Amino acid sequence: MTFALLFGGNSFEHEISIVSAITLKDKIKKHTLEFIYIDQNRNMYLVDKQNMKSKYFASGEYKNSQKIEITKGGFKYTKGLLKKDVFLNYDAVINLIHGKDGEDGKLAGILEFFNIKSITPNVEASVISYNKVLTKAYAKEIGVNVIDYEIITEPKSSFDFPIIIKPARLGSSIGVSVVKTQEEFDYAFDVAREFDDLIIAEPFIEGIEEYNLAGCLAGGEFMLSNIEKVEKSDFLDFEKKYMDFSRKNVMLSDVDKDLTERIKKTFKKIYNSTFKNAIIRCDFFVKEGSVYLNEINPIPGSMANYLFDDFDDVLEKLAKNIESEKEVKIDFEYINKIQMAKGK
Amino acid sequence: MTFALLFGGNSFEHEISIVSAITLKDKIKKHTLEFIYIDQNRNMYLVDKQNMKSKYFASGEYKNSQKIEITKGGFKYTKGLLKKDVFLNYDAVINLIHGKDGEDGKLAGILEFFNIKSITPNVEASVISYNKVLTKAYAKEIGVNVIDYEIITEPKSSFDFPIIIKPARLGSSIGVSVVKTQEEFDYAFDVAREFDDLIIAEPFIEGIEEYNLAGCLAGGEFMLSNIEKVEKSDFLDFEKKYMDFSRKNVMLSDVDKDLTERIKKTFKKIYNSTFKNAIIRCDFFVKEGSVYLNEINPIPGSMANYLFDDFDDVLEKLAKNIESEKEVKIDFEYINKIQMAKGK
Repeated sequence: MTFALLFGGNSFEHEISIVSAITLKDKIKKHTLEFIYIDQNRNMYLVDKQNMKSKYFASGEYKNSQKIEITKGGFKYTKGLLKKDVFLNYDAVINLIHGKDGEDGKLAGILEFFNIKSITPNVEASVISYNKVLTKAYAKEIGVNVIDYEIITEPKSSFDFPIIIKPARLGSSIGVSVVKTQEEFDYAFDVAREFDDLIIAEPFIEGIEEYNLAGCLAGGEFMLSNIEKVEKSDFLDFEKKYMDFSRKNVMLSDVDKDLTERIKKTFKKIYNSTFKNAIIRCDFFVKEGSVYLNEINPIPGSMANYLFDDFDDVLEKLAKNIESEKEVKIDFEYINKIQMAKGK
Repeated sequence: MTFALLFGGNSFEHEISIVSAITLKDKIKKHTLEFIYIDQNRNMYLVDKQNMKSKYFASGEYKNSQKIEITKGGFKYTKGLLKKDVFLNYDAVINLIHGKDGEDGKLAGILEFFNIKSITPNVEASVISYNKVLTKAYAKEIGVNVIDYEIITEPKSSFDFPIIIKPARLGSSIGVSVVKTQEEFDYAFDVAREFDDLIIAEPFIEGIEEYNLAGCLAGGEFMLSNIEKVEKSDFLDFEKKYMDFSRKNVMLSDVDKDLTERIKKTFKKIYNSTFKNAIIRCDFFVKEGSVYLNEINPIPGSMANYLFDDFDDVLEKLAKNIESEKEVKIDFEYINKIQMAKGK
């Protein structure tokens, strides 16, 4: 199959998205890829495979690539003096834009409105996972445990130190701090405010275990990844996570069977029909045997391909089972009724 | 000022949107309007003011209008053999598409991604108000009362009859039923399922009072409408609401001062920064003196213009204070760091 990979975007995770795309270029063996780069100004470029190197983007060289536009039915550019439309060919688009633009629902909205078949969280799923307050609210409504939290509007919290301060709407640990003193709290609050006006505080729980599981639902069947046990000192900050990004060996955990089952069951509850058409990664905490949702990554770094045994197969099965939104037929019944009532 | 009115869309409320646009054409005196119709196939047309009659759309005549496209920076069509781009001029767009496409976050995403200055709920605000489960979850997180509810997957509920059955994601009372017997419940459940796969049940509370309040935040100041007390028999069904749509006289309630203040306070709590750039109408229930949020209409019928004393002024003030999303500057710091580390 042929996939069009959308990456970049006006996002704090722009560079992660570039690395994600380069990683997938190497990891996807069975399928053909087209690369569509969205620069910080949201201009779009069709990038040749041989140019898929981070330097090509950082240097601005990408501007020599073919400019392309998103429009009804797909991506097009014009050719020649008569500006003939040329549409890009692919079987499905993969939305690989992390953070703003990609995960906040904007691109999902565009892809859906323009009827572009895509592997992407839809608008609702994006919003639920992008805003941590809504993630927790959603989890509570469907009966999934979450770590306690507070919305804070100043560096004050009812939790005892250490606590974690997070901007509500960013991924990749950007703007996140663990604080142990009021002084650190003051500073961390200012840092978080640089990224969002909605800030939350959570208690930092020592010795909590973290497990990641990715998957999707294709044709009524779940395709779940291996479970990764995350080893970390304090917590992964942006830089560490980033530098660690192209890791080749993943710690696949020797998770006991009962816990494995409970993690999988929780994943399915979260995914249900809300996350259809997306490959998501859920990060879980386990505390005293109970499973808590930490966060939902609806577009995980390099699509969490490293967690799957056969990622090519997952992509293919999902792409073949993309569910388009039901179209509404307009019959003008009411307007016609009014016209008749008016005697027009 | 000049406003471009977006209406229509692939939505069950397509016809309501047409009526909304026609209503605003008559109600807006001080400003100039451009009309952009989105048909059920999501083709866009620039419609002349003199053609703004419901029959023009119902008959299909609208297809003779100038086709127009949404793109980076606005709306354009091409002219002549050389296909020169012509961009439409306006000060701000008004998203007047009710239900799907307009209120589910798709258009908000497109408008924001393409940097189009608009009066519209943003993606997050759209999703919160479009899905009634999320509306309730959001209200609970910010400390606003909501009527109890259950997600139901079959015609069974723990509430006593009468109960209300609602598809989670539609407005204008479409697919909503009040049921008093199991037989009615079975039927109502099937009806609701025609519109959504997420269905909720609420207890129907006799003698509850309903109040509507519209408003927006412009330049740090709230502009709130008059409060409307809604008189109804059982509840407003789609047809009744629709036929009632162009009503000229609104029952402005003789609401007591204390209740007025509490309704306004609740409105502001809901609106906060989440609904910035939108004129929303909140429908409240009052039960034993307590205020409950029933639903948030982020794009109310004809923008709830009938509730405001000077709607032209509200539009102008809001348009002048539209807050654009902060743009992210990409500095390629991390990629450059990796390049250096690699010695490239």
